[in-house]
This record gives sequence, C-alpha cells and structure tokens, in this order.
Amino acid sequence: MKFCNQCGSPVTWQTPRDDNRPRFVCSSCLTIHYQNPLIVAGCVPVWGESVLLCRRAIEPRLGFWTLPAGFMENGETMEQAAARETLEEAGAHVQQLNLYLLFDLPHIHQVHVFFRGQLPDAQYAVGAESLEVKLFNQEDIPWGELAFPTTRHTLEYFFMDRVRQAYPVRNESIAALSSNRLQQD
Amino acid sequence: MKFCNQCGSPVTWQTPRDDNRPRFVCSSCLTIHYQNPLIVAGCVPVWGESVLLCRRAIEPRLGFWTLPAGFMENGETMEQAAARETLEEAGAHVQQLNLYLLFDLPHIHQVHVFFRGQLPDAQYAVGAESLEVKLFNQEDIPWGELAFPTTRHTLEYFFMDRVRQAYPVRNESIAALSSNRLQQD
Repeated sequence: MKFCNQCGSPVTWQTPRDDNRPRFVCSSCLTIHYQNPLIVAGCVPVWGESVLLCRRAIEPRLGFWTLPAGFMENGETMEQAAARETLEEAGAHVQQLNLYLLFDLPHIHQVHVFFRGQLPDAQYAVGAESLEVKLFNQEDIPWGELAFPTTRHTLEYFFMDRVRQAYPVRNESIAALSSNRLQQD
Repeated sequence: MKFCNQCGSPVTWQTPRDDNRPRFVCSSCLTIHYQNPLIVAGCVPVWGESVLLCRRAIEPRLGFWTLPAGFMENGETMEQAAARETLEEAGAHVQQLNLYLLFDLPHIHQVHVFFRGQLPDAQYAVGAESLEVKLFNQEDIPWGELAFPTTRHTLEYFFMDRVRQAYPVRNESIAALSSNRLQQD
C-alpha cells in the first residue's frame, strides 16, 4: 500500500495514537488503513464413499488437486461461501453442510474454514478454475499431488473421523510449513 | 474507496474479466481491490460461576456491556486474538481457550468467533477501551444493557450449555436485527 484509497495522498507506516501496532496512515486525511486476515471457505463434498476433488487450472499450484475452496465474499455466510465455491469450481450443488475444520494460517494472514457437505447425486462439472473434477475413494486420493497443506490435513481428518462416524469441530494453527499459499489475485 | 492504494489513480466500480461480481478496479494500473469479511474474535472469560464483562468506553455502544472481543490482526491465530482482546480490554490472562461459537453477520461483512476461556485467578483490570470490568453471576447479567446481539447470544448459549456441561461448537447466521455493528474505526 502506497496511497490512501480515500484521498489519493501517500500513506506512511506508523503507530496511530491510542494504538499498539503500526498501520498505514494517510499523510493528508489521516485515515488509518487496517489490514486483517482473510477467510477462505471450503468444502469436503461427499458422495457415498467418495469425495470430490478439483485439479487447479490457476496458480498457485496449477495442476495440483484441491478441495473446492476460495475467498469468502462480503454479504455471504461461511457456509454459503463454501457452497458457492463448490458450485463454481466443481459444478456441484452440495447440501447439508456442517462446520468441520478451522485452520489458522497466521504466516499468510488467513483462516481456512472447511465444511462437510453431501452431494445429492453424482452430478458435477469442470468449473472455470479447474482442469478436472473427479470423485476419489480413500485409496485413490492423490496424496502426493495435493495443492495445499490444509487440503491434506482436511482429507486426513475426514478419513480418520469417518471410521468412528464422529466429526468434531477442530481449530488448529498451521505453521509456516509451505509457501504454497492460496493467494487472492 | 475512491483511489488505488498502489498508484493513487481513481478507481472504478466494475466487474473484472473472469469475475462474477463488481470490484473496485484501478483505472490506471488495473489493480483489483478486493473487499472481504473481517473476523472479530472474542472470549467468554470464566471464573468459577461467573463471567467477566466489560462496559464499553468507546463507540459504538459506549456504556453498554460486552464480552472482550475485537478485530483479529494479521499474524495471529483466532485463539491468540481472543486472548489478546481479553488482556487489552479486561486486563485478564485467560487460559485453556476452546472454540465455541461462530456467528456469520453477512449484513455487516463480519464473522464473530467466540472462545470459552478460564481465568486462573480473579485478577482483572479496566482496559483503555473499557469504563468498567466486572464478574457477573448468571442472575446478575445486565441483559438489557448488552452491547451487541452476538454478546447476548453467546451468553445465552453459555448458560444453557453450562447446565449440561456440554459446549458444542455452533455456527449460526445473525440476520440484520440491529444496527449496533462493531466497527473498525
């Protein structure tokens, strides 16, 4: 950030009065420009014994497999965001969504929220951001070709929890293991 | 938003190519300026039979009672944000935090995340954004003077769940019931 989005003047990096950390502050109109973590909402779309994965048609991690997920938009709920991403990336209308996993990624200023969801049928399609969309049984998951650490963690938890048919909501912090960040660009 | 924070040129409100909704786009360098929901992280600080509330010293809802909560910052986890807010607003070092409630507030582009936490002692203090900080038993909660709908919902769930000593993680959408939004400025 170099300029104030309210008045167009240059910003400086300084700690505002009554604050405890530096922010971008406008040199002219004094607007403080806060920067805060983004929410990525995703889904584990389940059809019988299978889950639906997408092979990414865009960077980062083009060609790698992911669960449908993307940046939550203004005006929607986390659940709506997860369902929208599943429709956009995998052409599937997911139902009965249940909150499942919340990953903190403080090193990239993101929170990834995954829901479990049921597919009402085996209907799906390749979305604009996908090269391929496919149902996988557990034994066929392409573990070596998954796009993001939270994709892998989510699938690992899902298959572990499925054995007991109990899916507790978990919140975990992901350390800076990987530079494969989901970027908003 | 009126100006590009990268180059200072005016922005226009238009749907970028390959996108499905309007964004602010720079007329000169073509940077797309995404706007996304913010996370507010808060805590139910528990000491024996009591919970710790703060009376707000700032707008919105100056003078009303709230649970410690505020905007999550870059570089921290949701749990760290909830603990930090409890320290800043109530001078209390909360421990053993457990994820508890997630409220979607799509009408104001926020997600409110509350943790339950234990106070190791009855030590607390009035933070800079508080007029007063006080432990309340259930029968003394100032229900008519609570600051935000999510404050009230969280306390209602907490006392209800405490009867059974079971605190399931819930995700609910809060409709536009109130204009008492927690604003970042």
